[in-house]
Amino acid sequence: MGTRLLVIGGDAGGMSAASQARRLQPDLGIVALERGRWTSYSACGIPYVVGGQVPGVDDLVVRSPREFREHYRIDARTGHEAVALDLGARTVEVVDHGHGRTYQLGFDLLHLATGARPVRPDLPGADRAHVHGVQTLEDAAHLLEHVQADGPGRVVVVGGGYIGLEMAEAFARRGCSSVTVVEQAREVMGTIDPDMGALVAEAMRRAGIDVRTGVAVTGFPPGGVATADGGLAADVVVLGLGVAPDSALGAGAGLAVGARRALVVNARQQTSADGVWAAGDCCQSFHRVSRSAVHVPLGTHANKQGRVAGVNIGGGYATFPGVVGTAATRICRTEVARTGLSSAEATAAGLAFDAATVSGTTRAGYYPGADRITVKMLAERGTRRLLGAQLVGGEGSAKRIDVLATALAAGMTVDDVVGLDLAYAPPLSTVWDPVQAAARRLAGSG
Amino acid sequence: MGTRLLVIGGDAGGMSAASQARRLQPDLGIVALERGRWTSYSACGIPYVVGGQVPGVDDLVVRSPREFREHYRIDARTGHEAVALDLGARTVEVVDHGHGRTYQLGFDLLHLATGARPVRPDLPGADRAHVHGVQTLEDAAHLLEHVQADGPGRVVVVGGGYIGLEMAEAFARRGCSSVTVVEQAREVMGTIDPDMGALVAEAMRRAGIDVRTGVAVTGFPPGGVATADGGLAADVVVLGLGVAPDSALGAGAGLAVGARRALVVNARQQTSADGVWAAGDCCQSFHRVSRSAVHVPLGTHANKQGRVAGVNIGGGYATFPGVVGTAATRICRTEVARTGLSSAEATAAGLAFDAATVSGTTRAGYYPGADRITVKMLAERGTRRLLGAQLVGGEGSAKRIDVLATALAAGMTVDDVVGLDLAYAPPLSTVWDPVQAAARRLAGSG
Repeated sequence: MGTRLLVIGGDAGGMSAASQARRLQPDLGIVALERGRWTSYSACGIPYVVGGQVPGVDDLVVRSPREFREHYRIDARTGHEAVALDLGARTVEVVDHGHGRTYQLGFDLLHLATGARPVRPDLPGADRAHVHGVQTLEDAAHLLEHVQADGPGRVVVVGGGYIGLEMAEAFARRGCSSVTVVEQAREVMGTIDPDMGALVAEAMRRAGIDVRTGVAVTGFPPGGVATADGGLAADVVVLGLGVAPDSALGAGAGLAVGARRALVVNARQQTSADGVWAAGDCCQSFHRVSRSAVHVPLGTHANKQGRVAGVNIGGGYATFPGVVGTAATRICRTEVARTGLSSAEATAAGLAFDAATVSGTTRAGYYPGADRITVKMLAERGTRRLLGAQLVGGEGSAKRIDVLATALAAGMTVDDVVGLDLAYAPPLSTVWDPVQAAARRLAGSG
Repeated sequence: MGTRLLVIGGDAGGMSAASQARRLQPDLGIVALERGRWTSYSACGIPYVVGGQVPGVDDLVVRSPREFREHYRIDARTGHEAVALDLGARTVEVVDHGHGRTYQLGFDLLHLATGARPVRPDLPGADRAHVHGVQTLEDAAHLLEHVQADGPGRVVVVGGGYIGLEMAEAFARRGCSSVTVVEQAREVMGTIDPDMGALVAEAMRRAGIDVRTGVAVTGFPPGGVATADGGLAADVVVLGLGVAPDSALGAGAGLAVGARRALVVNARQQTSADGVWAAGDCCQSFHRVSRSAVHVPLGTHANKQGRVAGVNIGGGYATFPGVVGTAATRICRTEVARTGLSSAEATAAGLAFDAATVSGTTRAGYYPGADRITVKMLAERGTRRLLGAQLVGGEGSAKRIDVLATALAAGMTVDDVVGLDLAYAPPLSTVWDPVQAAARRLAGSG
């Protein structure tokens, strides 16, 4: 019998690794376990299924178990959950939910991609049936049935981060009778500065969504949400409080954990144990700007880390250089993006910085369809090193953050950004791209 | 009397410098001469005035002479042309076209921003009245009067570069009875590889424009264009053969000229003579990828170089880091962009390279409005250093080139590009951005 790679977790971080390992090692035996019904899907697409822009949950699946079996010779088993791991014996205990049985499976090489779980608040009633997390396609299917069966009702979203706001918009698109977002902090979008988050909240309010900030949730009574400011009736409550790494299987087997109990990995995605790799939401990442270990659960990182792990498992050499903190979304026709450190993060890292905010347009001001864009940029005092940036604006705004994500990876100063040779044509940009206008302001000649 | 700065040329390269110098030196006397009727305008917007998306020529003016006088205390004189320069005597001879007089003007510091002129082919009839260049707002006003007075007619565009194709689309939008593009090379858009240029030609043909490649123009008989393949009737002929630096004034006074007879400048935009600066289409630039002097007449460079010259003139310190060859446009709903070296340019520079072309979508494939994007990327053999890239695709394609322009400025390899932390959300991108998919292909794991 040949060498067997066992992959635990059938989404991006797992299946990218399995595919790369197969590409490099045609003779490797590969088994992939996925506790859910689907493999290799876009969880980020869930709000658009709920919102109706995408017809169904199946549209989010990139590759089915059958495709993995037939085209990659990967034994992908859905409904199979690894519940215990013995690294010494090189075995896992697996529950086959479809057949109600448990079995042992041996491996030579192990790759963990166990993902993350939605954070559930430690509050009365948080486990009631009307309180939903949004992380897996099962969650999406469940919410979708609810919306379709019961018709538009009253929705309360708890937490004003990316997923919370995306879900609020989705329910508003479905014609729910009311959609309310409750956020404990002073502004939504805690990953960007409050002055920028306020622009997002305004866009949501213009779209008819009731956004309440500075309001603490105290519990989930039947048919509602209790807050410090009084009760809210709700047919559906959606939790948008972020996710925590689902590292229990690896940690229980003795693997080292770090930031937020995510699995510790090196640049090749190797865990603290020989022959054991990890990728995606279950593990931590190196932040190239703050130069610290962080937990950033995003599909882009899961895909890249999975690829790196798979290349290394297959006998090649690849490293994951780390993250710079890029994220983006579109909420109520308003694009939002960030990269690097926010003001709060820079302060927490002990960095002194200058910040500048500029407003511009996405196309030449005289060109039809030119829309507003606001750019906030942070640079380290003294060195003038770019530390981070945030954008809020119309169509064509968000992907401009990529220039600054690239500049952060290269360690550029704001002067370097001013000198970049960025594309200009009146239908596409202003002659000074808005991101360069912000850099000019920080460079002192804006 | 205080120090006098004389600026020759009232568009971006001149007035950016004048504004920066004023900011730093409140007491400097500043005179700016512009031979045309307008200052500080977007020549890149001309096709959109002709096409009707922008109401009139005046909409393209960023700042009028009056604004420069009142808000910047810059003595901006339109219709005044400098016709001779004496660097020893520190004087220019100026023709005031409005009053039909000539006068002498002295200066202490000189900044040249004399721009470029459309290339006129050395062919019979090239000076006939139906043959038009497109460079200044005067040209635009002239073409616009023609279209409005005579109504839609037959238009032939000679030359399939950016401005030629933009003008062809503009006339097609105006409802001209026929629009034909004649290009001598085997494909349009000579600044990108022919396989990518073909995608642009296809888009134009789908929009009803007759694109003829590999056809040499032999002359301009009355009411038409003569080609090696026979004659074409034309009420209007537009020349899109590029521009040449208008460096005669400076070169005549003894300033050093280089690539295509453009003025030689150092990183601070100083010419070969003390106290004489230059910026914009009249001067050459350093190419950061080919590491050679080039002439790249684009408004973005004129603005940046003008700013750098103005800071230095004002006693500050700034340098222009050079260009990486970025350019973009939108033709018939198809976005086109390029940066770095094309295959032909890389070969001419003696560089061995690998190229990869990938097709992807501008948004997640399942998201409404996802459009096709094709990315071609070149990397140096051995070092894997990114050399250049080209994109053709739907809405949201072109500005993705900025990531690669930034990567070129940083000297990144294709592996570095694969590892970039770019923004992802289903309405904005695929999880692997198309530019990273191309880099993956070159990195050997696509």
